[in-house]
Amino acid sequence: MSDNSLNDLSRRLADFARARDWEQFHSPKNLSMALIAEAAELVEHFQWLSEEQSYQLDDGKREEVALELADILIYTLRCAERLDIDVLDAARRKVEINERRFPVEKVRGLARRAAEYEPD
Amino acid sequence: MSDNSLNDLSRRLADFARARDWEQFHSPKNLSMALIAEAAELVEHFQWLSEEQSYQLDDGKREEVALELADILIYTLRCAERLDIDVLDAARRKVEINERRFPVEKVRGLARRAAEYEPD
Amino acid sequence: MSDNSLNDLSRRLADFARARDWEQFHSPKNLSMALIAEAAELVEHFQWLSEEQSYQLDDGKREEVALELADILIYTLRCAERLDIDVLDAARRKVEINERRFPVEKVRGLARRAAEYEPD
Amino acid sequence: MSDNSLNDLSRRLADFARARDWEQFHSPKNLSMALIAEAAELVEHFQWLSEEQSYQLDDGKREEVALELADILIYTLRCAERLDIDVLDAARRKVEINERRFPVEKVRGLARRAAEYEPD
Repeated sequence: MSDNSLNDLSRRLADFARARDWEQFHSPKNLSMALIAEAAELVEHFQWLSEEQSYQLDDGKREEVALELADILIYTLRCAERLDIDVLDAARRKVEINERRFPVEKVRGLARRAAEYEPD
Repeated sequence: MSDNSLNDLSRRLADFARARDWEQFHSPKNLSMALIAEAAELVEHFQWLSEEQSYQLDDGKREEVALELADILIYTLRCAERLDIDVLDAARRKVEINERRFPVEKVRGLARRAAEYEPD
Repeated sequence: MSDNSLNDLSRRLADFARARDWEQFHSPKNLSMALIAEAAELVEHFQWLSEEQSYQLDDGKREEVALELADILIYTLRCAERLDIDVLDAARRKVEINERRFPVEKVRGLARRAAEYEPD
Repeated sequence: MSDNSLNDLSRRLADFARARDWEQFHSPKNLSMALIAEAAELVEHFQWLSEEQSYQLDDGKREEVALELADILIYTLRCAERLDIDVLDAARRKVEINERRFPVEKVRGLARRAAEYEPD
């Protein structure tokens, strides 16, 4: 990973788990469960809000949302580390895939499920 | 955000959305839904595997998992950007919270739901 | 379970799994993962739609949504069966809890996160 | 729906929402979010348990799990009701689809992602 800050964070998370003897629980399978549970806490903040309201969070709510996003990033890095995956590199490759897959002239202003754009 | 690589990626994702006129769909509410849908694709890879098997993915599967983690990171950054949240900073603050909340001597080797550790 | 139709369906699902020797994979843990993966497929149908649009599905989409809801019900029943839980009875008890927890005069027209209504 | 008990429950849930003026929040989009948030609470119970442990819940935990499954059933019925979908009928049709899609002789003892069984 060419990214020092993400690298540092990932190492700190590994140290945190090791110090608590929690690596035994941190299989990729279990971490995928923890990750989606955190993603659901993000969803919960927005479930009864309109789209407009979801932009206009008060300070307390915005900080709660920031910490949910933090938890998601934390488990994403943990899962990547356990599988020796460079997630930043993977994200860059995924953006390139998306740029080829969704050419501007074809999809401008249209939001459909990705599957509907699959090549025939 | 002190992190150039994450910053660059986040900007590139915003450009990608703007070029396709997709920002209209990218409310925090909608992005939380897209994020959890990607988290579920990660879960799907592991749902019928044992914990041991979840470490030992063949190359094809490992690359698929890398791209799911990439999608999760992408939507995490998108959601943070829409709410003007610095997710890397939030993650560092969250780690500090966790270090205080789960002292080594109290939780070593125990994995329970976070709620069970809440102060009374 | 006093409900013959749900009972019948639950039994048929158990037979289906046994005939394929799939019960070995159907631990409550794994079934919770399969369940949330199906819930995410439901979410995916709605993620880029407005709330209004989410009511007005065309016939093809509506049938796809029906089958996602079916998958969710199927895994809910499977998980309940593995743990010897009567989910219909639990749902009735949960409605009663909710009726006490959210009295009409207190919550009319307000949708907030359940946690915010918890007794202090 | 030929099923009186599920029908009764679904009607009771609609009455509950109407009495609180909550139907305005119960779009299919929003209900899919609430549903997956409940599914995640189920996942959370199992995320650090082994598969074996996930069968052996103590009474308190088992009741908590029962109420999570209840919440999932409740939102499944709510979402179906809003879209005028008969979820029990859909589940029966889905079982028939699965019986054709996963013939016993082809899949016995193999648990793979459904996509891998798709006809070529």
